[in-house]
Amino acid sequence: MAKTIEWIGEFDGHLRLLDQTRLPTETSYLDCRTVEDVWQAIKRLSVRGAPAIGVAAAYGVCLAGDSEASAAAACDYLATSRPTAVNLFWALDRMRAAIADHQAPRLAARLLTEARAIHAEDHELCAAIGRHGADALADLPTGAGILTHCNTGALATGGDGTALAVIFELHRRGREPKVYADETRPLLQGARLTMWELMERGVDATLITDSMNAQVMREGRVGAVIVGADRIAANGDAANKIGTYAAAIAARYHNVPFYVAAPSTTFDLTLASGNQIPIEERSDDEITRGFGKQTAPDDAKTYNPAFDVTPAELITGIVTELGVFEPGKVAEALTAAASK
Amino acid sequence: MAKTIEWIGEFDGHLRLLDQTRLPTETSYLDCRTVEDVWQAIKRLSVRGAPAIGVAAAYGVCLAGDSEASAAAACDYLATSRPTAVNLFWALDRMRAAIADHQAPRLAARLLTEARAIHAEDHELCAAIGRHGADALADLPTGAGILTHCNTGALATGGDGTALAVIFELHRRGREPKVYADETRPLLQGARLTMWELMERGVDATLITDSMNAQVMREGRVGAVIVGADRIAANGDAANKIGTYAAAIAARYHNVPFYVAAPSTTFDLTLASGNQIPIEERSDDEITRGFGKQTAPDDAKTYNPAFDVTPAELITGIVTELGVFEPGKVAEALTAAASK
Repeated sequence: MAKTIEWIGEFDGHLRLLDQTRLPTETSYLDCRTVEDVWQAIKRLSVRGAPAIGVAAAYGVCLAGDSEASAAAACDYLATSRPTAVNLFWALDRMRAAIADHQAPRLAARLLTEARAIHAEDHELCAAIGRHGADALADLPTGAGILTHCNTGALATGGDGTALAVIFELHRRGREPKVYADETRPLLQGARLTMWELMERGVDATLITDSMNAQVMREGRVGAVIVGADRIAANGDAANKIGTYAAAIAARYHNVPFYVAAPSTTFDLTLASGNQIPIEERSDDEITRGFGKQTAPDDAKTYNPAFDVTPAELITGIVTELGVFEPGKVAEALTAAASK
Repeated sequence: MAKTIEWIGEFDGHLRLLDQTRLPTETSYLDCRTVEDVWQAIKRLSVRGAPAIGVAAAYGVCLAGDSEASAAAACDYLATSRPTAVNLFWALDRMRAAIADHQAPRLAARLLTEARAIHAEDHELCAAIGRHGADALADLPTGAGILTHCNTGALATGGDGTALAVIFELHRRGREPKVYADETRPLLQGARLTMWELMERGVDATLITDSMNAQVMREGRVGAVIVGADRIAANGDAANKIGTYAAAIAARYHNVPFYVAAPSTTFDLTLASGNQIPIEERSDDEITRGFGKQTAPDDAKTYNPAFDVTPAELITGIVTELGVFEPGKVAEALTAAASK
């Protein structure tokens, strides 16, 4: 399988990103040699997915040169690339701490060690999420349908994914999940990326438009919904790719359990509720010319929020590397674990 | 404004259809000179929208030649073009009755008279729906948001539309509706056709992806949802373009009233409930290559139902040419009117 994020060489090396805007028809790589290259790659979604953005940004700081001032400036700059996923800010805070406490002569080596640690830790977080989520879904019958939205797999993280890691773990356990993948307009991460990952791994996958998920639930085809998150507030409200909220409402209407899977790095316990999560708005073109072809009248006005917030009341459980928690209890659990 | 459906000439003339697959970037016409031409135009959605399909099919019968056998065969054949919209079968039944009761020497002239009557009547049905619907929404504040799905305007009917006729009438009355148009995947009738019609008429219109409508409701931007229908069962369950059901669930969750607008020709009172409405499934390509570009892996499996059924319990009212009815009472009202 292609590597989503790879550092090539040592501390004077560069960052290689799988260019996700070209998938699934083309597997090509972006070699990022400057901080600006990484900023652009995040901005235009060549690398995306909350954990992957954090990992890529951490490596991006390693391209800033060997002075504290340039590394700190890189942290500030990369933080402006996208506003919603909190993993970005978390990873940059780790890099800032590494800048502050480094003592060796070569800052660059220290920064690369930190970025690699962030990357490796994310890999472990994904594995733990997969196990806990698969345990939580152990009561689903073999062959049960699972609906997901956007992409939350190896392409979105430093490891196997968040929601998709759960699905991969169920597959590994022989539970034969039948996955319904929302295509995820406007940028079709579900169609382009999730379908690609599922098919590569031999998981049964069916692509639907976002507008079909309620009907698929009505037909009794869905035993659970599981999605990722870009930022989760202290009360359990979860921001994720636009369309997640609609899927959660449909799940509630059909009494289908709805899970959010995310590592502790996706939580922002400084925010009391999801209302405080900043939501990125993106350009008209993603809706009106999303496929290289104009599909709306000239000058059509659009509204294009990239994320929505699913309120805690619609969430059955949040799957983290520490276990699965009710949304209202997750902040307490994470805080207790952090203070150990 | 371009004409959706126009018969050119007299009984030896032909049918001219606005090719809706080319909108909004190209205004071009299809000249249909054979029954097969019309069947293909319906099948590939060059003409679409339940009432418009009925009108086009009626004219299509006029291309069959001047014998009862060929006209009857044309009725049978055109009935195979699409399965869900009942207006198609209703219009063909009218044409069959015309074949059966014609006495004049020229059957073709009789058929054209009947097709023109169906076309003209649909125009009147649309106008009445617009008035009744605007009356029903009279309590909405001026400038209120109205969400709609798919296309239900002049492009979908022989007149001004069904759900869009209501919006046009509100606009005419100076109520300044702010319309949110779902783009309506997979074929983007909302983006391509509804936005075009609204912008042509100067109605404030904002395009969103289908996955955004719940979020737009959550933000308090929507005072009412109004959609069309392709077939309505006796209990008020309404089949309409895929994604309507999800919008109805979201409307209920946000306590937003949800209206269906359709002429009496869209009702199928022989069906007790929506479970009996046949739902057309369409090709993978509409999802995986919907814009002339491959957007999913080779051989990706899809599920592509073209319609869903919104249960009566989610419908606030059904707007017909006879007035606005609760879903549970509409069959009785239509039956009473028909027996007058």
